[in-house]
Amino acid sequence: MSKIVSVNTTDVRFPTSLELDGSDAVNVDPDYSAAYVEISTDEGEKGYGLVFTCGRGNELVTAAMESYGDLLLGRETEELIYNLGDASRRLVHDSQLRWLGPEKGVSHMACGGLVNALWDIRARHEQKPLWLLLSEMSPEELVSTVDFTHIRNVLTPGDATAILERGQENKQERIAQLKESGFPAYTTTPGWLGYSDEKLVRLSKEAVQDGFGMIKLKVAGNLEDDKRRLALARSAVGPDIHIAIDANQRWEEQEAIDWVNQLQEYNPYWIEEPTSTDDILAHAAIRKGVHPVKVATGEAVHNRIIFKQLLQAGAIDVMQIDSTRVAGVNENIANLLLAAHFEVPVCPHAGGVGLCELVQHFSFFDYAVVSGSMENRMIEFVDHLHEHFVEPVEISNGRYQAPELPGIGAEMLQPAVERWAFAAGAGW
Amino acid sequence: MSKIVSVNTTDVRFPTSLELDGSDAVNVDPDYSAAYVEISTDEGEKGYGLVFTCGRGNELVTAAMESYGDLLLGRETEELIYNLGDASRRLVHDSQLRWLGPEKGVSHMACGGLVNALWDIRARHEQKPLWLLLSEMSPEELVSTVDFTHIRNVLTPGDATAILERGQENKQERIAQLKESGFPAYTTTPGWLGYSDEKLVRLSKEAVQDGFGMIKLKVAGNLEDDKRRLALARSAVGPDIHIAIDANQRWEEQEAIDWVNQLQEYNPYWIEEPTSTDDILAHAAIRKGVHPVKVATGEAVHNRIIFKQLLQAGAIDVMQIDSTRVAGVNENIANLLLAAHFEVPVCPHAGGVGLCELVQHFSFFDYAVVSGSMENRMIEFVDHLHEHFVEPVEISNGRYQAPELPGIGAEMLQPAVERWAFAAGAGW
Repeated sequence: MSKIVSVNTTDVRFPTSLELDGSDAVNVDPDYSAAYVEISTDEGEKGYGLVFTCGRGNELVTAAMESYGDLLLGRETEELIYNLGDASRRLVHDSQLRWLGPEKGVSHMACGGLVNALWDIRARHEQKPLWLLLSEMSPEELVSTVDFTHIRNVLTPGDATAILERGQENKQERIAQLKESGFPAYTTTPGWLGYSDEKLVRLSKEAVQDGFGMIKLKVAGNLEDDKRRLALARSAVGPDIHIAIDANQRWEEQEAIDWVNQLQEYNPYWIEEPTSTDDILAHAAIRKGVHPVKVATGEAVHNRIIFKQLLQAGAIDVMQIDSTRVAGVNENIANLLLAAHFEVPVCPHAGGVGLCELVQHFSFFDYAVVSGSMENRMIEFVDHLHEHFVEPVEISNGRYQAPELPGIGAEMLQPAVERWAFAAGAGW
Repeated sequence: MSKIVSVNTTDVRFPTSLELDGSDAVNVDPDYSAAYVEISTDEGEKGYGLVFTCGRGNELVTAAMESYGDLLLGRETEELIYNLGDASRRLVHDSQLRWLGPEKGVSHMACGGLVNALWDIRARHEQKPLWLLLSEMSPEELVSTVDFTHIRNVLTPGDATAILERGQENKQERIAQLKESGFPAYTTTPGWLGYSDEKLVRLSKEAVQDGFGMIKLKVAGNLEDDKRRLALARSAVGPDIHIAIDANQRWEEQEAIDWVNQLQEYNPYWIEEPTSTDDILAHAAIRKGVHPVKVATGEAVHNRIIFKQLLQAGAIDVMQIDSTRVAGVNENIANLLLAAHFEVPVCPHAGGVGLCELVQHFSFFDYAVVSGSMENRMIEFVDHLHEHFVEPVEISNGRYQAPELPGIGAEMLQPAVERWAFAAGAGW
């Protein structure tokens, strides 16, 4: 039986701040980065994971993955990848490391990177892409991977099992449909705050031509700019394409309500991250105050306990899971189950480096056996940095096409990892 | 004018797990540790800070302080220590590092360590202990240090100024009183889960003899054990001494209510950390469900935004600030102001390494110019590891005596830092 023999990390960064790709009202100059991890066994099996960051500090996540990695070294691979619930709990609830969160920030994201790399080994072992692995797992095994700690008051293992058992009905048809025609996407490519009006209009038109049903614009820098840019985008895409707006937590509660209401004439579909994602009560107030604009959040929601409360408080219309913010696949299964329980659609956050590659699996799985629906559900798409991945996302007709290679999608091309290794790589 | 020339960190750990000091239902084997930092200027000024952790992972906080420290190197000391609001914002809101939290976990605690070290330079510069420095600052300067981002909806700078202006009345009398007779303490020394019944009883009796008005017991391992230990403690201390209980986040919502209600006959004063500190809504439900037992939390509350909501939701009776969980002195000023605004008493968390030394300053300041009250207010005391500090806390008649040396209290004795440096120090 094989054992884990190494947990190797690389601090991979791309100098995206040079082009203002990814610029918004809060993240003004991100260098999209991946704290990248490769777990190896003594029989040559490999698993890859990554955690997205904005540049500075990426080295702290790689360091944290190495620290947590000590808890995996020497362990039997099979025991880990066929007891992924236990494997995750061993990391997340380590009695000393727990203090660093608990379950939030650098330490939690690092756990997620490692947990994901273990899932990658499992998925490769079974020769399936993650979404299909999950979709074909039994409800019992899926439930066994979920940590119900501090969400049990609204979702019990029994509730979760019931959702997944309902999801078994006709799942083969849904799986076939996913393989055939994929899952809807929307694009944020046109809307970065650092782009000129001309670039915004051009990219908005291209988005419609490319078949996207929604585009997203960054807002909250300056109200008059927002009005002008929304007017330009609305003319460019016409009345039938949704335009979402994203404030990246820039506002206070009342400020969010007032600002969004001054943009109502452009008919924004949702307002994303109107304020701190820690602020459940403010999201609930904002949702009441900006109706009929929907409220979306999640890319910075640090764990299932915050999502649970956003749902309990009726604070969100759209739940945006992120593939590398929480403690990996397990916690995102919990998040999908919570959303299904409250009948709130999940529209994952993506972009950055590798987030599209990873997060698509959750929407495919969600459709196959959790919510069973594509209604009001879309995966974010941003056309950045996909060329560095072994299996870059494939978008056609505004839809993500089903990933086919075994694994979770995190493996990068080795030359890219070496070239953009910070700061010794040739790219820097 | 002097400049910051170095930010040096040391990973200091004590093997406390050998004696089960500090053992509770979640933290079963902590090695109390300090991520220790020394900031130096080119004119030889020094400032010391520390972040408490439970052992493994301490190296991640020192690494994070070094990363954030890069933002301070070369800056003019005076510009930083006389604009501590700006200095803190520059760290906390760094446009790339922010993603690692935002404002939570390893990155946020590291900011706190550095911000505190800057306050240490300022306090030494003015030859005052922190509590007196704060108490003698103008309301305007105090307000300028606070980051009102995402708390403005309940506390404006105007509200904060009004609280502090009210606090100027008779403050010299309160300062004199603090210097004369200190501030009430309670002790957790008797109540660790790993201690025998005999040790529990003996230490409980000693606590009463030492003049403490409250002791605290760890609970939530096993209900029958909790009943037996509470009964023993109640016999040992008599009916007039408060006994607080602390579950260290062990329970689910309903479990907390049921468990605490089965301990009502022993008349516990508060239940601390009944569940996840992320769970505002569960705390609100638990508070309703365990009346008249009070609900206390805070040592793991990661920022002012969570405290704000706990107060808004009426979820806590007692707010327990921690000196090294949040982004330093500035954020704890915000926390004290929020508590004063909602008229909730602050009983700081302490123990660990250095937490007593640091956090006492906030209660002294709170009494001098924020709440102006000692009613239902006590600082936690645990008799561990004080001997390693330049100015160990002084407790007499169950009260913290006013610290007198200039600074924030974080400076450790250099031989101790060297001896317990992990893992190269002679102590290991």
